[in-house]
Formats: sequence, C-alpha cells, structure tokens
Amino acid sequence: MKPYAELTKEELMELRKVLKAQYREYQGKDLKLDMSRGKPCVEQLDLSMGMMDVLNSDSDLTCEDGTDCRNYGVLDGIREAKELLADMMEVNPDNLIIYGNSSLNVMYDTIARSMTHGVMGSTPWAKLDKVKFLCPVPGYDRHFAITEYFGIEMINVPMTPTGPDMDMVEELVASDEAIKGIWCVPKYSNPQGISYSDETVRRFARLKPAARDFRIYWDNAYGVHHLYDHDQDHLIEILAECKRAGNPDLVYKFASTSKVSFPGSGIAALATSLNNLADIKKQLKIQTIGHDKVNQLRHVRFFGDIHGMVEHMRKHADILRPKFEMVEETLERELGGLGIGEWTTPKGGYFISFESMEGCAKDIVAKCKKAGVTMTPAGAAFPYGKDPKDTNIRIAPTYPPLGDLTIAMELFSLCVKLASVEKLLADMKENRNAE
Amino acid sequence: MKPYAELTKEELMELRKVLKAQYREYQGKDLKLDMSRGKPCVEQLDLSMGMMDVLNSDSDLTCEDGTDCRNYGVLDGIREAKELLADMMEVNPDNLIIYGNSSLNVMYDTIARSMTHGVMGSTPWAKLDKVKFLCPVPGYDRHFAITEYFGIEMINVPMTPTGPDMDMVEELVASDEAIKGIWCVPKYSNPQGISYSDETVRRFARLKPAARDFRIYWDNAYGVHHLYDHDQDHLIEILAECKRAGNPDLVYKFASTSKVSFPGSGIAALATSLNNLADIKKQLKIQTIGHDKVNQLRHVRFFGDIHGMVEHMRKHADILRPKFEMVEETLERELGGLGIGEWTTPKGGYFISFESMEGCAKDIVAKCKKAGVTMTPAGAAFPYGKDPKDTNIRIAPTYPPLGDLTIAMELFSLCVKLASVEKLLADMKENRNAE
Repeated sequence: MKPYAELTKEELMELRKVLKAQYREYQGKDLKLDMSRGKPCVEQLDLSMGMMDVLNSDSDLTCEDGTDCRNYGVLDGIREAKELLADMMEVNPDNLIIYGNSSLNVMYDTIARSMTHGVMGSTPWAKLDKVKFLCPVPGYDRHFAITEYFGIEMINVPMTPTGPDMDMVEELVASDEAIKGIWCVPKYSNPQGISYSDETVRRFARLKPAARDFRIYWDNAYGVHHLYDHDQDHLIEILAECKRAGNPDLVYKFASTSKVSFPGSGIAALATSLNNLADIKKQLKIQTIGHDKVNQLRHVRFFGDIHGMVEHMRKHADILRPKFEMVEETLERELGGLGIGEWTTPKGGYFISFESMEGCAKDIVAKCKKAGVTMTPAGAAFPYGKDPKDTNIRIAPTYPPLGDLTIAMELFSLCVKLASVEKLLADMKENRNAE
Repeated sequence: MKPYAELTKEELMELRKVLKAQYREYQGKDLKLDMSRGKPCVEQLDLSMGMMDVLNSDSDLTCEDGTDCRNYGVLDGIREAKELLADMMEVNPDNLIIYGNSSLNVMYDTIARSMTHGVMGSTPWAKLDKVKFLCPVPGYDRHFAITEYFGIEMINVPMTPTGPDMDMVEELVASDEAIKGIWCVPKYSNPQGISYSDETVRRFARLKPAARDFRIYWDNAYGVHHLYDHDQDHLIEILAECKRAGNPDLVYKFASTSKVSFPGSGIAALATSLNNLADIKKQLKIQTIGHDKVNQLRHVRFFGDIHGMVEHMRKHADILRPKFEMVEETLERELGGLGIGEWTTPKGGYFISFESMEGCAKDIVAKCKKAGVTMTPAGAAFPYGKDPKDTNIRIAPTYPPLGDLTIAMELFSLCVKLASVEKLLADMKENRNAE
C-alpha cells in the first residue's frame, strides 16, 4: 500500500468507502473494552496473592529493631521496608521516607506543603503572585492535574527521544524565578516509554535554577518495570548525580510498589537529601503518627529483598511482553508505511504512545469510543488536556486480555486510517477553497 | 489526714521530709515506665490478630459490587467498608469517605485544603490576614499542633463537665469572621473523658457563625470506646442534629479504627453533608486514585458488621477497665481529702485528667520523670503547650501492664504530695516576704 499522502482524491474516496464498511462491522460487534488507564491485569494481581499469606494470626509482627508494627509510632517507615524500597530506588535507606499506599498522594502533598510552607524556608508559594512548572509533553495527566489544582501555570517542554528538551529546560529554569519545578517520569516515561539519556540526567543534576526552591519532581514510577530480561534501559541515579554535581537538594524522587504488588494497597516512598528530609519531617510529624507498618512488614516478608522483587517483576514482564508485542505488531502490520502515524516501542513501563497526523487524535479516540473501545482521552497527556497539534494518543495495553487487546488494536488501526483519510479529504477541499 | 492547706508550716516541713525520703526510695528503683501517650497495650493488639487470617491467597478479594480490591479505583471507599464505618459513626454510608490509616491525617488534610482552596468556594485561608480556631482546653495536643503549624491563632475555651463553655463559643463564633473552626473530641474527650451533654450538642448544631466557612471539627475518636457494658455515655449524633437545625454543612466528623483494630494500620473516615463531600472530592480525585481497599476489605471481613465490632470493643473494655479503676482507686486512696488535686472518672476513652494545685503540674511531671516515669508533658493539652494555671496532667493508663501502672500511680501520687507541700511552703515564704 502506498502512503496515504500520495493517493488521489478518487483513491481516498474509494478507500473511505471500504474503511467505513469495515468500521460499521465493528460497530455491530457490541464491543465494551476499556484501554483508558495503565492498570495491571488480573493475572498480574494474582502474582501477589502470596502476600496475603505471609502474615497470619501466629505471626510475630515485630520489626528487626523490636518495634511492634501493630501499634502507633515510627514516623518515616520501618527499617527493613526502607532497605527494600531503597534498593528498589537505588538510594541510601537514610535518604528515604516510607509513606502510605500512593506515591501520587506524596507528590500532591509535596506541592501542597510548598504552597503553605515553602521549601526549606522559602516564601510559601501561596503568597507569590505567580508559580510555574515545566511539563515535559506528552506526560502524565495526574501530574498536570495536581499543578493545575493549585493554580500553578504549566509550561510545555517537548520530549525528545533522550528526554525533555534540555536546552529549553536549562534556559527557562535559569531565567525565571517563578519556575519552581519540573515533572519527570525519567524511565519508561508515561506515555512514550522513553528513558532519559545519561546526558539528560547529568544536565538535570547541573541545572542552575533562578529559584532556590526549585526542585525536580522525579517520579520513577517504572524503575523496575522492564519488559525484557537483558534488553533493559538504565538510568543514572539522580540523587547521587545531584550530590556529585554539588546540588544535593535539587531533587525529590518518588516511587511505589503499586505496579509491583497491589495498586492502591502497596507502599510509597520519597527519597531526597537529608536537608530536604528534615524540612519534610517538620510537616510529617504534624500530619500523622505514622503510616501502615503492618503493610510495610507484609511487603518485606513477601519480597524478602530486592532480588525477590526483581524475580517477581520478571513474572509481570512475562505477562505484559506479549501484549506490548502484539500492539506493536498490529500497528506495524496495519499502519506500517502509510505515513499516517508513528508509535513508540518501549522496553518497559505501561504505555505505548501513538502520534497521528496533525488534527486527528481526538477524532480517532472518538471513533474508537463509538465502536465500544475506550482509549485515554486525546489531549490527556498535556497540561489542561490541550494537545496543541492534536496528534497524541496513549495506548495502555496492560489491562485487557490478549484477545480483547487484539480486537481493540485492529479497531484502533482502522480508526486511524479512517480519520486520516477523512482529514486528507478535508484538507484537499480546504486547499481548493483557498485557491 | 487533714487537707494540706490546713497544715502548719512545721507540719508541712515534717511532711516534706517524710515524702522526700519516700521519693528517694523510688529513685533507687531504676524505673523506666512510659505513660506519655494513649497507646493500646499488647493484650489489646492481640485481640485483632485474627484480622491477619481473614484474607489469604485463596481468598476472593472482590467486593459485593464486583470491584477487584487488588486494583486501582474506588475513590471514596468500598461500599461494605462505608456501611461498617457508617454504623460505627452513626451516619448514612452516603455521607462518608473512607481514607487511609489515620484520621489525624484527614484532619490535617482538611485544614490544608481550606488553606489553599477555602471551604465550598470561600477565600482560601492562606489569602486571609488572620485565621482563628477555638480550642476547648484541656484538649488534644495533636489537634493544636495542626492549627499551630498553619499559623492559625488558637483561642482557649474552657471545658466544663458538659463540654466546652457554649456561651463563650456562641458569642465568639457569631462575632468574629476570622474564626473558622473549633476542635472537638465530643465523647470521652481527650484528656478529661467528658462527653458533651445533649444541650451542648444542640447548641453546637445551632451555632450562627459569622464566617460561612466555619466548620465544627468533630473528632469522634472514642465513639465506641466504652469501659462498661451498660453504664455508657450517649452522644446526640451531630450530622443529623445539624440537619434538623437547618445547618447541614456545619460539621466535619472524623473517626478511625485505630484503637479498634491496629493503630496506624486501621481505616479512617470522614462523614459530612453531601455539599461538603462534593467540595472535598474535588480535591480527593487530584490527590489519589484511591485508598487501601484490601485493608478496607480485611476490616469488613474481620468485624462482619457493627455488632461484631461492638463485641470486639467489649474485649478491649475488659482489658482497660481494671487499669482505669486501679488509677482511680490509687488516686482516691493516696490523695482523697488532701485538697491538692482532682481527677476525672470517665466511662470510656483513653485518658484520665488530673488537676493539681495551681503552679504544680510541671513540677509533678518533672519529679515523675526524675524517678523514671514519663508522663505526657505538662501543658501538652493546651495550645502552644501553655497551661495558663499549670494544673493539668494527662494520665494515660492503657499501655503499661497493671503492675507497672500501680507503681507509676503510687509514684505519681507521691510526686503530687511532694510538689504540693513545696508549693505551700513557697507560698508561705512569699506571703511573709510580702508582708
């Protein structure tokens, strides 16, 4: 098949007829498939059912240091949980606080604290006229929702295959004191699955922000979420790199076991410099007496250590790999060479990112929806939900069973074709009118 | 023994000698007892060990409505957990949000949200020159710590045997728009164990605050924490009373299972009007994807229903009752009729409140500490840690074994006597100097 851009008007009209007939067939199938969020599938959840057995009524729920996990106390997490999460996050356990079940909540809380109390003694952001954040795009919608909720102005920074456009980041951060942070998913990014290059991480660690309360919000959500055993992305550890660069306080690093054990019932953590930790603990001791230590202990007893967690993640990979491969194969088979879309082929994480022709993404997602397949809303990966070029669609292959996913991706490809043909025809009409 | 105030100087000096000798004996015993916090004891924690068995790897972790508790989702709690907590809190499940492991955290979060986003559309408190809270005293130190952290000015309101001084509350609330809230522990209050009378609750529900974003922060921490089977305090349910009074949005009600199952590993909840809930959910959906549903399910499967929880609380009472009775008996035996202290005899909750002669509380606590018994710091039950008369001491009888508690209370009584004698002698000297 020729690239669509080379087809004549007549060929396109004929093609549209064929595609429409195929689309109507799908509409008749009464599909109800949800590909909107990056949720683990049932088989993945089953992997962690053993976690329900590691503690029982005969168990000693005492920590290695003698703390009874069943009672009040221990503000920043039990030692053995810190060690496990520190190994997962590649940091020193002393640089870590264990929180509750959600790293998103820790990020929210970090912004909320900065609003009311500033960062290490700086002016509370709520007292400033203007606060801005840099947002690499496409990115994670829930990050952007937090900054939007607090009235923080968001500035788009384009993603490149090696991470955010660092020339732009460096320049903006150095020149504008109102810029207080940047949202990053540095490994297997949401939604593109891009891992930041060594140079990108090094440039991050060497940023010279105008604002002394500027921090990098490093959401390492997919740090151990590889799809392959050997062909894995490696990320330079940012805390250590910041320390080496003489900027030890520049970064907050977040992670959780949400997609390791059970989403919503895992444990979350924040890792940062001792200075930042001291600042955060002033709040933490007011906020709570302590997080769920029994659940911390449950995780430690289930995984044992980081090797146990790595072995566990291999089982996740075995379930997810065929899904990712199927999506990529279908897209290649259906759309390869047509010049109407591009997609990423990540080695880990939870998403594949699709780029349509300009102005087609919303239409494609709407067409999928009308035929019973719910995708993440087009534009969701951009601040304020606005994709300037209307090209980006996030594909979340993890949750549906492989059979459903195959059908969904075939329908998706069909919708891409149909939307593209319609766009090309509309453009032709417009060009004629303009002549 | 005569009241100390009737003793002559010589009698007091002789008494001081005897008491000092007794005190030195205690100092020689190398005691190390901690009565500083209201923590459940080991036997109480053992009561909930069955909770570790209700979910195992063969369990179906599906809710009644079909939700898989192991995955993302369900922002405000699973239905069956709402029903259990609603019964515990005497409210409609639809008026409730289930949170994480800590109601203190929910209260913190409620204040933090009001700071940055106001209450149902009001001006964010961070944008106001002055925000004030009413603080019934003595009260709960962690409440006061939250308002202090946010720079909210705290106004002491004296507690009476029927609750806070309502004349004062009504007048202040009606006259000052800067007053945005009042901290209440309405049942078996911390530290006095006072339950608000019917009239007090009715007057609360009929408050006419100048500030439309004024809310009552109703921390019903000890709602089901009775010591006796029949001789129990009963509290008018505040949400319903506010609704009847035409003030449905006036109150936030908080509770948790911290002292029902495991402190720090229980589930917390907030109950309030649908209007307030809608306001709160605007934040909640940004803050998290959902709280720990597996733990919610664990609680539901363990307790079954409210009757199961009531039976469970009876076992707690059986452990705690002898401790409270021993404290009261010791105080009566050692201090009865001496006119140097008064104490409460609550029917539930976690504390007994002691009132010394003016200016003695700090000294008594210091003397206990020097002999190896750590009490809650004197003044802790007051905003900014300042007890204006230096009389209040919180006694927390729950955690130590009965034997330790007996020794601690004997030492405590001795310290009360010694401090009182020293105070009376000092006063005599002062009076003589003044003549």
